[in-house]
Amino acid sequence: MNYSKAYAVAAAHSPLAPFTIQRRLPADEDVAISIKYCGICHSDVSMARNAWGFSIFPMVPGHEITGIVTAVGAKVQKFKIGDRVGVGCFVDSCTSCATRNVDLEHLMPGLVQTYNSLEADGRSLTYGGYSESIVVKEDYVLAIPDRLPLDAAAPLLCAGITMYSPLRRFAAGPGKHVAIVGMGGLGHVGVKIARAMGAEVTVLSQSLSKADDAMRFGADHCYATGMADTFQALAGRFDLIICTVSAELDWNAYLSLLAIDGSLVIIGIPEKSIPVSALSLVVGRRSLSGSLMGSIKETQEMLDFCGRHDIAAEIQTIRIQDVNDAYERLEKNDVRYRFVIDIASLQD
Amino acid sequence: MNYSKAYAVAAAHSPLAPFTIQRRLPADEDVAISIKYCGICHSDVSMARNAWGFSIFPMVPGHEITGIVTAVGAKVQKFKIGDRVGVGCFVDSCTSCATRNVDLEHLMPGLVQTYNSLEADGRSLTYGGYSESIVVKEDYVLAIPDRLPLDAAAPLLCAGITMYSPLRRFAAGPGKHVAIVGMGGLGHVGVKIARAMGAEVTVLSQSLSKADDAMRFGADHCYATGMADTFQALAGRFDLIICTVSAELDWNAYLSLLAIDGSLVIIGIPEKSIPVSALSLVVGRRSLSGSLMGSIKETQEMLDFCGRHDIAAEIQTIRIQDVNDAYERLEKNDVRYRFVIDIASLQD
Repeated sequence: MNYSKAYAVAAAHSPLAPFTIQRRLPADEDVAISIKYCGICHSDVSMARNAWGFSIFPMVPGHEITGIVTAVGAKVQKFKIGDRVGVGCFVDSCTSCATRNVDLEHLMPGLVQTYNSLEADGRSLTYGGYSESIVVKEDYVLAIPDRLPLDAAAPLLCAGITMYSPLRRFAAGPGKHVAIVGMGGLGHVGVKIARAMGAEVTVLSQSLSKADDAMRFGADHCYATGMADTFQALAGRFDLIICTVSAELDWNAYLSLLAIDGSLVIIGIPEKSIPVSALSLVVGRRSLSGSLMGSIKETQEMLDFCGRHDIAAEIQTIRIQDVNDAYERLEKNDVRYRFVIDIASLQD
Repeated sequence: MNYSKAYAVAAAHSPLAPFTIQRRLPADEDVAISIKYCGICHSDVSMARNAWGFSIFPMVPGHEITGIVTAVGAKVQKFKIGDRVGVGCFVDSCTSCATRNVDLEHLMPGLVQTYNSLEADGRSLTYGGYSESIVVKEDYVLAIPDRLPLDAAAPLLCAGITMYSPLRRFAAGPGKHVAIVGMGGLGHVGVKIARAMGAEVTVLSQSLSKADDAMRFGADHCYATGMADTFQALAGRFDLIICTVSAELDWNAYLSLLAIDGSLVIIGIPEKSIPVSALSLVVGRRSLSGSLMGSIKETQEMLDFCGRHDIAAEIQTIRIQDVNDAYERLEKNDVRYRFVIDIASLQD
């Protein structure tokens, strides 16, 4: 075993604090990675607070990981020492059924998440990216394109794929009108990706306070959902709406913004049920759908796409000693647009 | 003008009673039809009772019409005297925008429904198929394939297309698992169509009282939704579920029956909101969608498909003098599976 410095949450509502974890020695299929950066995802905060009730402690959060390969197992073929790599939301999956072949492994039971999961052996707990190093099976390691900086690329591993997957699946592209609801860590990356895909992009945000940024990221239009006439003005406009917020919304009002055959895709998880009027769906053959991360193959495709289009997150880099403060600011949406931990600060 | 014997509802909750209406003389684009049969759709009852609050009286219901062409206007090209034809849910639509070209006219504002609508001129009220004759623009008249009897074909004009459209759009076919919720007028036709498309078909009904019929119509399996273990046994099974009932259901339980990327399509209109848990959608990337009728082009395609596969409704033919009794039986689901009025009885 190797020791790795880390920051961990000892119990729900405890602050993150220095902690030492063990990483396995690389097996034949493993890649050992020196972590350079780790993004802070909203779900890190929810998990650390045990908001969903299934947190396991001690917990080392972090699933937006970039770093450099420091060792590879004997059978590793895709990576070599010195490669720039990433690790996203999961590090292993069920390989006994056919879903791996159709790239749906991220939706199957048996998924081993990057943290807060048991390894496939059922014994050891996974620890995430708020740490010096990680050892991951080759099949779950992503290549980071040379043109992307490791810090700003880190959030692509979760926020990027979470936006890319539904944009791709619902065919965002030339001639399509796409709306992104909420412009936070997810939304701002979604704007960039949707624009690069060729879609006409509209940001729907509570206010217009981020409108200048949205236009800079590639949005064609911004509307404030707090304004009374927004929903009337945009009725029937969009082929695809991706809702990145988990607040309670007037869902039928958002459905009314869809064109015929349009889809409203939720990627946040509102706590309360979403009440939908059947008429909202039947008139115009509209859909309400969900989306969750993406497969490894799709994640690599997204990274390559972002590399070609110079797309990365807008980040505020922090020292790991400031992570508890960052969590509090994140809960107040006080970040433009993603905190990324400089893991070198673990040595301070 | 021509006079036409009919049955009409004078006011909400009045019984249907003999009435005389006027039909226009055929204009250049018109087809005059001697009505032979008219199916009784659930929505006829709802409209006659003003259940949705937008009924216009006097009302002659009926939008599952079959008959024989008796005259054609000078510019009519597709039909001639003696042709076997049908008329469905609408008789005119907005032609000013591009939707007609992509066969979405049935979803646009400005649709002129076969009854309870104002004609495109904004003055005269449309009257439906509980009548001797009707005059309809050529573009809204359907050809009934020779192999289909006019009586059992009538329900295809609404029930048939309402099932065919989502089955087609969601690609029901070989290798796909399709569930039909409810086996009434809509559901039983859906079973036949889905089977003919090559899908594996499951009927989900409150009890197994119609199971023998379902198997005869082509279902592979029947399950009672009232049985506690049905939802557990079928978890994750279906690519497509079409819900034909408008009752309040445990929607998340039905969503749990969907496979990854599966869709639950509602074609009934439950009065209350449908409460959906975000997790039901996100886990498995499931969708909740709506569907409404079909375009004229798609309706003709459906009729031709049913002709090739000898698909028609299971009907109970009634005399028009018994229509009020039929309405009461329909409200108690006491019909196997569609009442069709023999319009010849109007002469009695």
